[in-house]
Amino acid sequence: MRSLIDILDLTVEELDELVKTACDIIENPKKYSECCKGKKLATLFFEPSTRTRLSFEAAMLELGGSVIGFSDAKNTSASKGETIADTARVVSCYADIIAMRHPLEGAPYVASLNSEVPVINAGDGGHAHPTQTLADLVTIYREKGRFDNLTVGFCGDLKYGRPVHSLISALSRYTGIKIVLISPKELALPEYIKREVIEKNGIPYEENDNLETAIPDLDILYMTRIQEERFDDREQYERLKGCYILDPAKLENAKSDMIILHPLPRVDEITVAVDSDPRACYFKQVANGKNGRKALILKLLEEAEKNPNKCVDTRDTVSIERCPNQRCISNNERELMPKAVKNKDEEVLHCAYCETTV
Amino acid sequence: MRSLIDILDLTVEELDELVKTACDIIENPKKYSECCKGKKLATLFFEPSTRTRLSFEAAMLELGGSVIGFSDAKNTSASKGETIADTARVVSCYADIIAMRHPLEGAPYVASLNSEVPVINAGDGGHAHPTQTLADLVTIYREKGRFDNLTVGFCGDLKYGRPVHSLISALSRYTGIKIVLISPKELALPEYIKREVIEKNGIPYEENDNLETAIPDLDILYMTRIQEERFDDREQYERLKGCYILDPAKLENAKSDMIILHPLPRVDEITVAVDSDPRACYFKQVANGKNGRKALILKLLEEAEKNPNKCVDTRDTVSIERCPNQRCISNNERELMPKAVKNKDEEVLHCAYCETTV
Amino acid sequence: MRSLIDILDLTVEELDELVKTACDIIENPKKYSECCKGKKLATLFFEPSTRTRLSFEAAMLELGGSVIGFSDAKNTSASKGETIADTARVVSCYADIIAMRHPLEGAPYVASLNSEVPVINAGDGGHAHPTQTLADLVTIYREKGRFDNLTVGFCGDLKYGRPVHSLISALSRYTGIKIVLISPKELALPEYIKREVIEKNGIPYEENDNLETAIPDLDILYMTRIQEERFDDREQYERLKGCYILDPAKLENAKSDMIILHPLPRVDEITVAVDSDPRACYFKQVANGKNGRKALILKLLEEAEKNPNKCVDTRDTVSIERCPNQRCISNNERELMPKAVKNKDEEVLHCAYCETTV
Repeated sequence: MRSLIDILDLTVEELDELVKTACDIIENPKKYSECCKGKKLATLFFEPSTRTRLSFEAAMLELGGSVIGFSDAKNTSASKGETIADTARVVSCYADIIAMRHPLEGAPYVASLNSEVPVINAGDGGHAHPTQTLADLVTIYREKGRFDNLTVGFCGDLKYGRPVHSLISALSRYTGIKIVLISPKELALPEYIKREVIEKNGIPYEENDNLETAIPDLDILYMTRIQEERFDDREQYERLKGCYILDPAKLENAKSDMIILHPLPRVDEITVAVDSDPRACYFKQVANGKNGRKALILKLLEEAEKNPNKCVDTRDTVSIERCPNQRCISNNERELMPKAVKNKDEEVLHCAYCETTV
Repeated sequence: MRSLIDILDLTVEELDELVKTACDIIENPKKYSECCKGKKLATLFFEPSTRTRLSFEAAMLELGGSVIGFSDAKNTSASKGETIADTARVVSCYADIIAMRHPLEGAPYVASLNSEVPVINAGDGGHAHPTQTLADLVTIYREKGRFDNLTVGFCGDLKYGRPVHSLISALSRYTGIKIVLISPKELALPEYIKREVIEKNGIPYEENDNLETAIPDLDILYMTRIQEERFDDREQYERLKGCYILDPAKLENAKSDMIILHPLPRVDEITVAVDSDPRACYFKQVANGKNGRKALILKLLEEAEKNPNKCVDTRDTVSIERCPNQRCISNNERELMPKAVKNKDEEVLHCAYCETTV
Repeated sequence: MRSLIDILDLTVEELDELVKTACDIIENPKKYSECCKGKKLATLFFEPSTRTRLSFEAAMLELGGSVIGFSDAKNTSASKGETIADTARVVSCYADIIAMRHPLEGAPYVASLNSEVPVINAGDGGHAHPTQTLADLVTIYREKGRFDNLTVGFCGDLKYGRPVHSLISALSRYTGIKIVLISPKELALPEYIKREVIEKNGIPYEENDNLETAIPDLDILYMTRIQEERFDDREQYERLKGCYILDPAKLENAKSDMIILHPLPRVDEITVAVDSDPRACYFKQVANGKNGRKALILKLLEEAEKNPNKCVDTRDTVSIERCPNQRCISNNERELMPKAVKNKDEEVLHCAYCETTV
């Protein structure tokens, strides 16, 4: 049995296959409308996220299955002191597959080790949100027909933007990718991602603090929101923000087949006037995300049928005193042993739960 | 494609047809039990209203469809700054029809202009709640067999009672209607409704501050709750409230085939002893409301299939600086242009979103 | 028509039949997968309880039915002053069966007298939670094959532990039962249960404040959580708590076929190391609870079809001034007459709603 915690848990081949299944579902929805008859998805949202929850629920219903769950932690046994491990075992008795959102990093991973059914990470703090990346990839494939030989611009908050980090990781496994990082210095991509992902994979990249000058080269523009509260200096924010707002004027020099992505919700970083531009693909992304989730649910249920044994951690780990990340599940759950993963070719150790460097 | 924002969006003929479909559903529920197989209703309740939400959900399930949604705004993307327009576009990717409740007036209308699927207004502040009126009309038709030649009393809070305003508007399109307004002066029907609806349609009406003297003439008695907090003077409230409580004694002089309606929930304005009177129809109204909603869902889905184009505002509008109603969506949503509707035969302008006179 | 408010509403024969149906469902789930097609369960949770709610919902879905409801009182008409009686009548229009959780004792009983469909008590304050007991009984029958000739230990908080009181009542109707009560004095079983249930039924029992010395005789060990806040004296709590924590060491002297039950969620009263012991049955209890609920839903729907008349209270009652229990529904709902049940052979009167001695 297998769960999906991070997009890189999937090989390139598996990911390509998922994307192709999603495309087939989009073309032939009726073919799949009874595939999950009698199956139940549990949406365990310990933190609200309506969009992601509704996407999973719509996906399962369109496959002919049904849904149980909760949308908010305060109504759960967690408030009575139950561990994630116990919750996962209990919910395994009620559902065939689990989608879990949790504010603590690593929580879905702990659930996957204790659940009798597959677990999909629907977002765990700043750690991972693999089905968002799947939505991005399905959209890129549907619109561009390929994952290689693409120049991809990421604009806005590249420091905290989890979808950005994750899509960079996913794309770095293909050939001919070029990356353009467009952000104010305050919100630049973290050094460890440049080093461990981009440079390690030999991806050419450039940094640019101006969307307008960067846009003409791009095949894909991935927009994200700049949050005022990230800035110490409010004046700095006011001076900068306009540079990172996409409007029809800035699109004038863009390629005619460039595609604009955004993980949504947007606030004002893309003006409404852009919505009617044929290059705007962010609402298509929403539908593609739902169909990517369908492909994933199908795949994990199929694998669980073939091999119903629980997930086990087969990685080479070492005990550590504690993970330095306060928001790691290992610092918040009883009877969970802190440990780190030891890669063969690296000296760096990562927490086995939240992947923070220890 | 069409949405339902206000009961008057429907012509008299369309409304009659809806009521007849509802009656047919009541008589032959099995005939309709698979009509919406594979269809999804999204219940977007930005404000809690359990009764209305459960009614919509039961309706969709009894048509063989399924339901996604939320019951409370705090768990939504709106809290992250997403506009109603964007929420509507996103949810269009997940559902085939939307029922939206929102505290801001005009919000479901904005949703309907942006959604790719039909939107039903499930209550927007003090503005409209057309499916409550549909429940009232189905009950009147089931119990009295007609919409004309009826003397209808409205009792209680006629000032703030949205169901009262809406039912008066709907009935004013039929012939032979007489209206009796029974309320303390503090809670009298607003002048503009008397003028623009009752008088304009030439409906005879009288005002009465005593339920007991008014009751003998009535074919229909529509009760509503008087809320203590509406009164500046608490003593005044205490002195008055008994006059507007319906009990078996006050029913003694009522016609034997009068029917008693109430939008529910009731507090103490109808005593429990009345429940067993055969004239009490307020619990029947609940079931009729569910079946009216089924008829409406069927009709809107059918129209959407024939014409899948988005709703557009084809009314003659003019730009205004701002709507005077603080609770209007146009004062609360980014990038929404304030505008007013210009009727040919009137000098009065109404906000294009919330219908407030501007 | 019949509802289930207390486990003792069922005769021993009916309970045995329910348990056997549950076992058949476990063995042949497919046989039951369409039994409730077109039927709806309403889960009315006026107080959050995710585990119980999800269990009911999974049960109904696995029977081919569907679910509506709410998980939290604050979003309901109750907050607008609606009575339980009215809520029950309204929800009867939307669903075929109701599972109600309520913080006020007796609330599901009042609902059952007003509903047009069967009501299952899903927990009403400290009063009753019959489907938890059903989960316990299904597990005992599946694991031990009988309900008689069993030595049953109850450990932990026996004072406030509703599942303990209820299981003792249920087991006291079988022969050859021995009970061992294992708790600190502060949390001993209430005298009235010893007197009115255990002694009245001639059940041999012993009290013991040490789990380790009590364990060797037991066929069943029912663990519960000791809550620190129950103790006036914190030091006392710290000194005692270790004695009531089940770990592999304490299990060494237990019978090899003893079974360990726990109503869950657990905090630390059973260590994780016990989970892999084949005697640990608390996660099996979760699945058994779901299947017990399926058997119950089937039975009540079947009875309602045969006899659709409302529940009526046929007991011999007398009016009382008020119930001494502040948390009794009769002290919190308008127009509800306080009354007590008069048993033939007893002088003690019990509140007709919450069963408190008056």
